[in-house]
Amino acid sequence: MRNILIIGAGRSATSLIRYLLDKSEEENLFITIGDISVQSAKKLIQNHPNAKGILLDVFNDAQRKEAVKNSDIVISMLPARYHIEVAKDCLALGKNMVTASYVSKEMQALNPKAEAKGLIFMNEIGLDPGVDHMSAMQIIDRIRAKGGKMLLFESFCGGLIAPESDDNLWNYKFTWNPRNVVLAGQGGAAEFIQEGKYKYIPYHRLFRRTEFINIEGYGKFEVLANRNSLQYQSVYGLEDILTLYRGTIRRVGFSKAWNMFVQLGMTDDTYTIPDSENLTYRDFVNLFLAYSPTDSVELKLRYALKIDQDDLMWEKLEELDIFNDKKTIGIKNATPAMALQKILEEKWTLSEEDKDMIVMYHKFGYELNGEKHQIDSHMTLIGEDQTHTAMAKTVGLPVAIAAIKILNGEITTPGVQRPIAKEVYEPILKELEDHGVIFKEEEVKYLGYNPENLHLG
Amino acid sequence: MRNILIIGAGRSATSLIRYLLDKSEEENLFITIGDISVQSAKKLIQNHPNAKGILLDVFNDAQRKEAVKNSDIVISMLPARYHIEVAKDCLALGKNMVTASYVSKEMQALNPKAEAKGLIFMNEIGLDPGVDHMSAMQIIDRIRAKGGKMLLFESFCGGLIAPESDDNLWNYKFTWNPRNVVLAGQGGAAEFIQEGKYKYIPYHRLFRRTEFINIEGYGKFEVLANRNSLQYQSVYGLEDILTLYRGTIRRVGFSKAWNMFVQLGMTDDTYTIPDSENLTYRDFVNLFLAYSPTDSVELKLRYALKIDQDDLMWEKLEELDIFNDKKTIGIKNATPAMALQKILEEKWTLSEEDKDMIVMYHKFGYELNGEKHQIDSHMTLIGEDQTHTAMAKTVGLPVAIAAIKILNGEITTPGVQRPIAKEVYEPILKELEDHGVIFKEEEVKYLGYNPENLHLG
Repeated sequence: MRNILIIGAGRSATSLIRYLLDKSEEENLFITIGDISVQSAKKLIQNHPNAKGILLDVFNDAQRKEAVKNSDIVISMLPARYHIEVAKDCLALGKNMVTASYVSKEMQALNPKAEAKGLIFMNEIGLDPGVDHMSAMQIIDRIRAKGGKMLLFESFCGGLIAPESDDNLWNYKFTWNPRNVVLAGQGGAAEFIQEGKYKYIPYHRLFRRTEFINIEGYGKFEVLANRNSLQYQSVYGLEDILTLYRGTIRRVGFSKAWNMFVQLGMTDDTYTIPDSENLTYRDFVNLFLAYSPTDSVELKLRYALKIDQDDLMWEKLEELDIFNDKKTIGIKNATPAMALQKILEEKWTLSEEDKDMIVMYHKFGYELNGEKHQIDSHMTLIGEDQTHTAMAKTVGLPVAIAAIKILNGEITTPGVQRPIAKEVYEPILKELEDHGVIFKEEEVKYLGYNPENLHLG
Repeated sequence: MRNILIIGAGRSATSLIRYLLDKSEEENLFITIGDISVQSAKKLIQNHPNAKGILLDVFNDAQRKEAVKNSDIVISMLPARYHIEVAKDCLALGKNMVTASYVSKEMQALNPKAEAKGLIFMNEIGLDPGVDHMSAMQIIDRIRAKGGKMLLFESFCGGLIAPESDDNLWNYKFTWNPRNVVLAGQGGAAEFIQEGKYKYIPYHRLFRRTEFINIEGYGKFEVLANRNSLQYQSVYGLEDILTLYRGTIRRVGFSKAWNMFVQLGMTDDTYTIPDSENLTYRDFVNLFLAYSPTDSVELKLRYALKIDQDDLMWEKLEELDIFNDKKTIGIKNATPAMALQKILEEKWTLSEEDKDMIVMYHKFGYELNGEKHQIDSHMTLIGEDQTHTAMAKTVGLPVAIAAIKILNGEITTPGVQRPIAKEVYEPILKELEDHGVIFKEEEVKYLGYNPENLHLG
């Protein structure tokens, strides 16, 4: 038996655990799930003979070390900031490790020691980061192998609601951590390059500078820039690329409507509101509007945001019941972002029948033998149900597959890693196809952002 | 001879030093001016027999302690963050101290020890903070002495260009630290209270939520909210007040035009621009606009900010020569804010003949014997010249006067202080009148923000 320790039994772990349980006989696995709630851990196991749930408080050094010691490989599904303690144990006790999170500075600093000990610390192997790295590097490596020179790389991803469950005016529900959605884009200007020109978008303009994509069978989507496109230059070896842009996918119209919250200041997470617990939704809205008791909150908001009476933006606000003067925020010391999240969760939480959808879209522009080419590649996946969502599958399956391939000696390069090497992405992408994670590729005319390709007049 | 040590011989120290030199015979003073540049110190003294300039690097412990030891009182005109080292020396060596800066947490922490040693550390005794505290507390104390209950306190201040020197479309020039002007309002939402309702304005809306005031002889001005109005509740003992709002005064139209920079992201100080040194002004503007080589930077900006062709906003931009494709930023590793400051300084620096102007305006609403009243009080001051600006006088004179009154035992309460006690503000305000700092007071109808006072219909 090979022992796999999974730390964290949250909703990102469902498909990961199902996959490993399904493989446990064939691969000779015993799976231990450690969580601060033993109930959560046990629920995911459902009495499977090759698994057990244990109490694991990641801040309890003895408990954590003991669990790591008894394992052959460790999967940490904790929030990113907690990985580092687990990683240090893995280093001390000589265990390989897998996470779906971005490589932190602290994690990167362990690289020399991990390499020296021959240990594999595989990170960024969920969906985004993860499937994006693998599916992009597969095509970039192929272009390079032909002798092509990369000109453009754009990569977009979104966790959305499936069309069959899309029944609100925002064309959106929370399929993942709502707090991250509310805070998305904050913390600094978005930075990217287009045709060699650096471009910056401040947070308060981010939701008004969207681009559009069409996906066969699903129609039109919008893309808003991620903060940190430029760091992909070094990760993918694209230092000389002319266009590098990463973004988040939403249904068309979401960003324009979300911008209302940004403009009002409702997404601010830097201060707390006095007596937020007893504030009504209407009071909350009024915090961000001029004092004028002769005017309704509604008219003040319409005036502040210049919303015409026949503008769909207005229906979107009303759908959220945001002017309700009975419902209260009910959270002590809430920031505006926390209060807004509360209001949105009431309307945007998945119902039992709802299914989610993952959309990923890449564009690769390159030059080969003096000619410009472009490959577009995209993937869509609809979730099974509320447990095995498309998000849980696309985040969890690559982690699970990687863990087995490390155990089996098929992934071998030691150190703090991302899944950008062929030895990693080829077999994982191949197996993901069996689970419906399939990229469709097409050659398109290279457009870039060049004037000769644009309609003038 | 009583020895006064002044640390920092910047342009905020000119009127302060002239005042003390003028008083040196009568008051038996010897003034030592310590600065990192002995030349700067000596220039301000102009061979006056009762003064000397010395080299003083505030980071040189021995040098600093020696200078403090030889003084009877220390005036620190350094940037606020450097006061604390001086204050610790004053504490150790038993010297009183005066600054024009906000009380920092570190400074406040010295209060028990300063009190125990009977030392006066007088802070916030410049213009804003300073003259605002004194002129406000004088009226608030008078209202309270009559038995009145404060309902409303609004206080505005601006450093502007005098009408006779007002010759650009922005009706603005830099009369003080340009960097502070570029960064004004950043770092969190503006918070205030109106009629008991908390109100918040995010930075990107701050310049579109202005109020207006009229000043006899000078016309109309606009006011934008300061970040931190609420902290004045405890400083002034206004915990139960219904309306508390502090703001910055500009000429009407400035904020709407400044908002263009905010919207584009040009005031951001959190990241540096690659190769900023060689960037032209035009390139700089283009950083914040969509990539579209078929369109001019001008049209992209007009489109992004929805500026009509006959909108005066456009002339304001052109006046700054912001679309120039020859002039370069010329600063390595510049942030957008630094680059913008460079562009503005070229146009907004005072010329030799220019005079500045200080405007301060307070509103006091109160209830007395069941009736509501309001007092408005305002002060305007035009600078003498570029050395003795209205800013240098209003910042420096209260500091100088306070220092002499502490030396003379007229200000006696020990501890870390602000000038909010009658013993401090009465004599200082009286003497400031001799220097043209005169508040005009008038009883007006109490308006507040109550519906019955507003025109309906």
